[in-house]
Amino acid sequence: MKKYNLPTLRAFTVTIHDSHVAEICLNRPEAINSMNNDFWRELPAIVNKLDMDGTIRVIILSSTGKHFTAGMDLEIFDSMDDDKDLEPARSAEKKRRWILTLQDAFTALERARMPVISAVQGACIGGGVDMVCATDMRFCTSNAFFNIKETELGITADVGTLQRIENVMPSGLARELAYTSRDLDATEAKRCGFINKVFDSQDEMLTEVRKLAATIAKHSPMAVNGVKEMLNYSREHTVTESLNYMATWQAGMFQAPDVKEALSAAKEKRTANYDGLRPL
Amino acid sequence: MKKYNLPTLRAFTVTIHDSHVAEICLNRPEAINSMNNDFWRELPAIVNKLDMDGTIRVIILSSTGKHFTAGMDLEIFDSMDDDKDLEPARSAEKKRRWILTLQDAFTALERARMPVISAVQGACIGGGVDMVCATDMRFCTSNAFFNIKETELGITADVGTLQRIENVMPSGLARELAYTSRDLDATEAKRCGFINKVFDSQDEMLTEVRKLAATIAKHSPMAVNGVKEMLNYSREHTVTESLNYMATWQAGMFQAPDVKEALSAAKEKRTANYDGLRPL
Amino acid sequence: MKKYNLPTLRAFTVTIHDSHVAEICLNRPEAINSMNNDFWRELPAIVNKLDMDGTIRVIILSSTGKHFTAGMDLEIFDSMDDDKDLEPARSAEKKRRWILTLQDAFTALERARMPVISAVQGACIGGGVDMVCATDMRFCTSNAFFNIKETELGITADVGTLQRIENVMPSGLARELAYTSRDLDATEAKRCGFINKVFDSQDEMLTEVRKLAATIAKHSPMAVNGVKEMLNYSREHTVTESLNYMATWQAGMFQAPDVKEALSAAKEKRTANYDGLRPL
Amino acid sequence: MKKYNLPTLRAFTVTIHDSHVAEICLNRPEAINSMNNDFWRELPAIVNKLDMDGTIRVIILSSTGKHFTAGMDLEIFDSMDDDKDLEPARSAEKKRRWILTLQDAFTALERARMPVISAVQGACIGGGVDMVCATDMRFCTSNAFFNIKETELGITADVGTLQRIENVMPSGLARELAYTSRDLDATEAKRCGFINKVFDSQDEMLTEVRKLAATIAKHSPMAVNGVKEMLNYSREHTVTESLNYMATWQAGMFQAPDVKEALSAAKEKRTANYDGLRPL
Amino acid sequence: MKKYNLPTLRAFTVTIHDSHVAEICLNRPEAINSMNNDFWRELPAIVNKLDMDGTIRVIILSSTGKHFTAGMDLEIFDSMDDDKDLEPARSAEKKRRWILTLQDAFTALERARMPVISAVQGACIGGGVDMVCATDMRFCTSNAFFNIKETELGITADVGTLQRIENVMPSGLARELAYTSRDLDATEAKRCGFINKVFDSQDEMLTEVRKLAATIAKHSPMAVNGVKEMLNYSREHTVTESLNYMATWQAGMFQAPDVKEALSAAKEKRTANYDGLRPL
Amino acid sequence: MKKYNLPTLRAFTVTIHDSHVAEICLNRPEAINSMNNDFWRELPAIVNKLDMDGTIRVIILSSTGKHFTAGMDLEIFDSMDDDKDLEPARSAEKKRRWILTLQDAFTALERARMPVISAVQGACIGGGVDMVCATDMRFCTSNAFFNIKETELGITADVGTLQRIENVMPSGLARELAYTSRDLDATEAKRCGFINKVFDSQDEMLTEVRKLAATIAKHSPMAVNGVKEMLNYSREHTVTESLNYMATWQAGMFQAPDVKEALSAAKEKRTANYDGLRPL
Repeated sequence: MKKYNLPTLRAFTVTIHDSHVAEICLNRPEAINSMNNDFWRELPAIVNKLDMDGTIRVIILSSTGKHFTAGMDLEIFDSMDDDKDLEPARSAEKKRRWILTLQDAFTALERARMPVISAVQGACIGGGVDMVCATDMRFCTSNAFFNIKETELGITADVGTLQRIENVMPSGLARELAYTSRDLDATEAKRCGFINKVFDSQDEMLTEVRKLAATIAKHSPMAVNGVKEMLNYSREHTVTESLNYMATWQAGMFQAPDVKEALSAAKEKRTANYDGLRPL
Repeated sequence: MKKYNLPTLRAFTVTIHDSHVAEICLNRPEAINSMNNDFWRELPAIVNKLDMDGTIRVIILSSTGKHFTAGMDLEIFDSMDDDKDLEPARSAEKKRRWILTLQDAFTALERARMPVISAVQGACIGGGVDMVCATDMRFCTSNAFFNIKETELGITADVGTLQRIENVMPSGLARELAYTSRDLDATEAKRCGFINKVFDSQDEMLTEVRKLAATIAKHSPMAVNGVKEMLNYSREHTVTESLNYMATWQAGMFQAPDVKEALSAAKEKRTANYDGLRPL
Repeated sequence: MKKYNLPTLRAFTVTIHDSHVAEICLNRPEAINSMNNDFWRELPAIVNKLDMDGTIRVIILSSTGKHFTAGMDLEIFDSMDDDKDLEPARSAEKKRRWILTLQDAFTALERARMPVISAVQGACIGGGVDMVCATDMRFCTSNAFFNIKETELGITADVGTLQRIENVMPSGLARELAYTSRDLDATEAKRCGFINKVFDSQDEMLTEVRKLAATIAKHSPMAVNGVKEMLNYSREHTVTESLNYMATWQAGMFQAPDVKEALSAAKEKRTANYDGLRPL
Repeated sequence: MKKYNLPTLRAFTVTIHDSHVAEICLNRPEAINSMNNDFWRELPAIVNKLDMDGTIRVIILSSTGKHFTAGMDLEIFDSMDDDKDLEPARSAEKKRRWILTLQDAFTALERARMPVISAVQGACIGGGVDMVCATDMRFCTSNAFFNIKETELGITADVGTLQRIENVMPSGLARELAYTSRDLDATEAKRCGFINKVFDSQDEMLTEVRKLAATIAKHSPMAVNGVKEMLNYSREHTVTESLNYMATWQAGMFQAPDVKEALSAAKEKRTANYDGLRPL
Repeated sequence: MKKYNLPTLRAFTVTIHDSHVAEICLNRPEAINSMNNDFWRELPAIVNKLDMDGTIRVIILSSTGKHFTAGMDLEIFDSMDDDKDLEPARSAEKKRRWILTLQDAFTALERARMPVISAVQGACIGGGVDMVCATDMRFCTSNAFFNIKETELGITADVGTLQRIENVMPSGLARELAYTSRDLDATEAKRCGFINKVFDSQDEMLTEVRKLAATIAKHSPMAVNGVKEMLNYSREHTVTESLNYMATWQAGMFQAPDVKEALSAAKEKRTANYDGLRPL
Repeated sequence: MKKYNLPTLRAFTVTIHDSHVAEICLNRPEAINSMNNDFWRELPAIVNKLDMDGTIRVIILSSTGKHFTAGMDLEIFDSMDDDKDLEPARSAEKKRRWILTLQDAFTALERARMPVISAVQGACIGGGVDMVCATDMRFCTSNAFFNIKETELGITADVGTLQRIENVMPSGLARELAYTSRDLDATEAKRCGFINKVFDSQDEMLTEVRKLAATIAKHSPMAVNGVKEMLNYSREHTVTESLNYMATWQAGMFQAPDVKEALSAAKEKRTANYDGLRPL
């Protein structure tokens, strides 16, 4: 396990496990891991670097301290006040571009070539919900809870929650949470399918999530990458179009050597040994 | 609490609660609240008026008597028989237009600027399922049940159930209900995510649903309106398109005064006081 | 009950029950019902014939032996090796066409005019998951389990699982199964909505599934056909487009004689007697 | 020929020709037919009434005086200034709703069940271009010209030009016109396909356009209505979807009696005599 | 040049030129090549066989006698009258399926792996327009004309004209033709882009069209097939989606050996010699 | 007029005219401006910088020497040969990513906030056609010609031509060009709408194109930016969706101060003076 070579991270730490698994950890517990300017600048840079590397096969998104994150840091809103004197239309265009940029930070998780797993302890508030909705799977501790706080603050949540939440939990519940800003606790989150599994403690959770990640990382990264590409694509296209895309993808990406290695490894009762993805 | 000033309602009563919550109540218990011509004429008129008003922030859809509704009234089918002597193609075009008009009555619930909550007691049959599928959230009593009766009557349900049901419950269950016309009871309806919560009695349900509605109505109506717009939009567009629409919307709709009021109210431990929506 | 007149089936048997229900049964238990060349050739031919017949109103997909299916037979991969000497681009085009053909075998289940119900005992592996995802409803025994084996074999599943699975179970769980190749047991499969009901034994399952199928087959086949067409259409279109399609469909397909028969039968407390679909 | 019975029109006259053709004529030549509040209120009301009537088979949109229209009347912008004191977000929402309402006035032309033909003399400026883009066909006099004036006025044209213009002329030319606000003269408008035919004088144009309209009105109005529905639908759907919609439409709308009448009339060398559309 | 081995063609002849070009020729001049039952049965069978063959690189669609085709043969309508006694809903469903089948005959031209060129002499009426709209390019003689006759016959054209025509000529003209059933002559057809080139005689046209086809057939059939796939795909997807599909396609289909052969042939000033497509 | 401060450009020069117009000029005439590695690296960097600047309102894309561009430089294909030893699936994935990157260089032209005008002299071959298809308008000299050379080279054109060309010229002609690799000369290019205007010499063309650009640059850059956003959006969405997006956009972007300035300037017969776009 080694720390990853990224220029002076302030909002995160990044750890590369021996298993080809990278763990991105929110690291400002003293501020309840609120999403400040550092956060927004560093997150997409980290994900982009891990995606280009070629050796990373799974990303875990975890946090430190009692709570996963308090959501947007107030300094963000302050920085928006700079444009007070702008002509209103140009100010609106600035706001639009600024929101698009924040959204991109979370969309990077969705676009990365490898699965992203979030592991939530304690509170996951506001922007935190936007963020975990953009990951492939969510795990949490029994004391975790989720809150679409924006509505209570007079804001329509704008960095991804409302665009993704009905894909990851039933519509009726999603609407209740978004309209009321009430907490969703771990039990209900598990029952409704938003959370894959609940753990008694953060330690147990991280141990198990890393095991899960290592299991995925043992599979052919080409096969896993294809799975993510296809699931994301199929969410937004007809079945007919998605099947055609699958066949066209597979025409070039079918991994004869990986299949051979999988079969040999199975026969020889050993772990398969696959090449990494190509560095970008 | 005051009755709403609408010209001679026959199928409904409308009550405006002090909380900026309007309650539309089916009011023909003697006919099991079946959907007759009055029903179809009055519902869209009521919803349209509430939507234009600007002071209404949540709509509750409730009913009277033992059952929520028996669905389509037979007088509707009779009125369709008027065209017996029409040339077949012109008769078909008339049927198409007539179905589009009925569908619009329920789509009005989906298009209204505020959340719509349905509160179901007893039986919710045929057209009743079409209707509650078009609301944001569904609550019911423990003796409630739902039935896509149309199939048993030799008809493909045509006013919204089949177009919305896989958005609000798992596909496999939805198909079983639609193919068999079997009852879905309250317990299963809750477990599958179709119903948000089950209550022991109608009284308890209405008390709690009105509280929930009041909670939503305390939030900024601009923020809540934005949430509904975005959830509906995202259901039918790619994530990328939905994020872009969100950012473009927010460029004009971001509610600086509402956010300030939310923060002040929180600091001063009082209820926030927001302007209503603009009358249309 | 009679055997269906199809030319020498080797991978399946087909039984026509008195109830207008056809049962397609995988019949190579000695090979764990693996999907060999016979399987891929016979399945679409059977479904097509049943679809054209006009008297068949429901299809059941069942299997024999301890396990439902082991998935793709290795002889399929062997046959793909024939193109070793082809120029790579032409080999890729061949692979693409071949996958499109396999996919079509399962899409035939989705396109057939009548509901298709799968009844799974024991293991349902790899291609088996692709197949049951293309059916309307899934039932299983308590010892059944499902596995997206392809990932573990170094392959991105390519005949339908990834294109349909997020329509039939929660996204987070679907991704865990697809990334890890872990088993999904019957209990979890029921809880997440993938399976409609779990039975203690295959006998009990088949008895109950046949009863369910017979119930559906008693309804107007025009109404049931319309339900399937609309649910499939609505999955891939906006609500507005789906409502318009429904109204246009209904303009021609509304079944006055069937509705009359349904009402008479109800009044006379007898089973309704509907014409079949038109043979194609 | 009779004037149409509509309550006190101020911006238009409406004439019903004997040929089942209605002519809507802009009638404020003293104000260069600018689009004032009367215009916006009356246009959709007229179109809606003609559409519901059932006897009208073609609509002509013409104008009086030297120029077709000067576009938006300044009184419209003044009325927008009323909201100066509104909270900015609510003001933005008001603006959005107001634009949607203006757009709907032109979309009514596109949605009407019969073809709409515009006949342009002299200048067609700003909103005039938005309007004629929403009609099925455009004819003009040799001294006509078209100008997307909004850009020069510091505004992005917002009532339909930019949403429809690349459907009715080549992209490169459309962009030049929209970016520069330069005039498009009749000759170039004809050459690029925007205009169907150019006439020497308004009299000649109106004579010929009325003849053309009468020719269309002699055909089965069900067939003509189907043509418009299909051309509009196909513009926005894949060929596969459009073919399916066509077949589903035709299942109910195929006009056996109209075909018989067409064949008899041809044999008997007389004009066919079709029923009108059904009143709405 | 050899005649193609197809079982007893009655409505067509098929000739295979030495140039890898197949020519499908309508061959019932005594009946003005009207589209009878033979026509509809044979056309898709021929196209399918040529598509599977692997050696055919371009298809020409030509005709014999004075006129290209008179469109639908009346025997087709007669055969539709068989269902007079069917229950109306089942009759409508039959009509829908029957139209879908006719449409498929022309869609086969669009789906074939090689370009299809139509060469029209004299009249091209009704179904003839539907057919040539489904081909890649259209050429004609100076005495050719095109007519969407269906409207005049009381029918909404239903086998492809309305679904494709705005892709191949300006919207305004297309609507005039479809609403009026007037002739489009060769000159106007060329000017509006519907026709690629007009020739003085059928002989000259066929000579030149065969030369053009031979030129295309000299290029790599993999490259040409990719061009057709991409142009068809791009017509119905966003630019972003189409670019992604292109890149995914190219990942497998990029033709290193073909490029090398193209460069060598150019250097050696000889015709390149490419492998055919793979037989299906 | 000043040279733009960009780090050592090798394939281009960039000039900023006094009119807020930037001119990007291909500058390797000795190599017929072929698209080498420098080209692909520099183009998106330049466009991005101009887009962020805020003062640039129009971009002109011109070239030097006898010909506009010879298309892809052979060194690009050589660099693709590096992956000879890669496992085929990973090589295919590399190829896919590489093509996506090349495509992005041209898409940058389409995404930039200001119009892009191309001015073509002499030959515009292969990648040159891909490039100019991504610009808003195309102008050329009378000796210019365009050629989709890729097909003749055994390649399916893959960086944008096939995805955009049917948006900018008639389908039948586009297919002829793409299938045959024949030249499209200036006259035909103008007649078919691909080219806005043809000039006798490059000097005359550049003088006129710069005047045109200056005219556009005199308009409100917010209005012009909105026009481009809407035209691009409308190409890929239904009219209904595009109108809704327009209204939502306008809610925030309506430029009251720009309109006032436009009106004042018109009254005072002077050039309007607008703020630039906001720097990104």
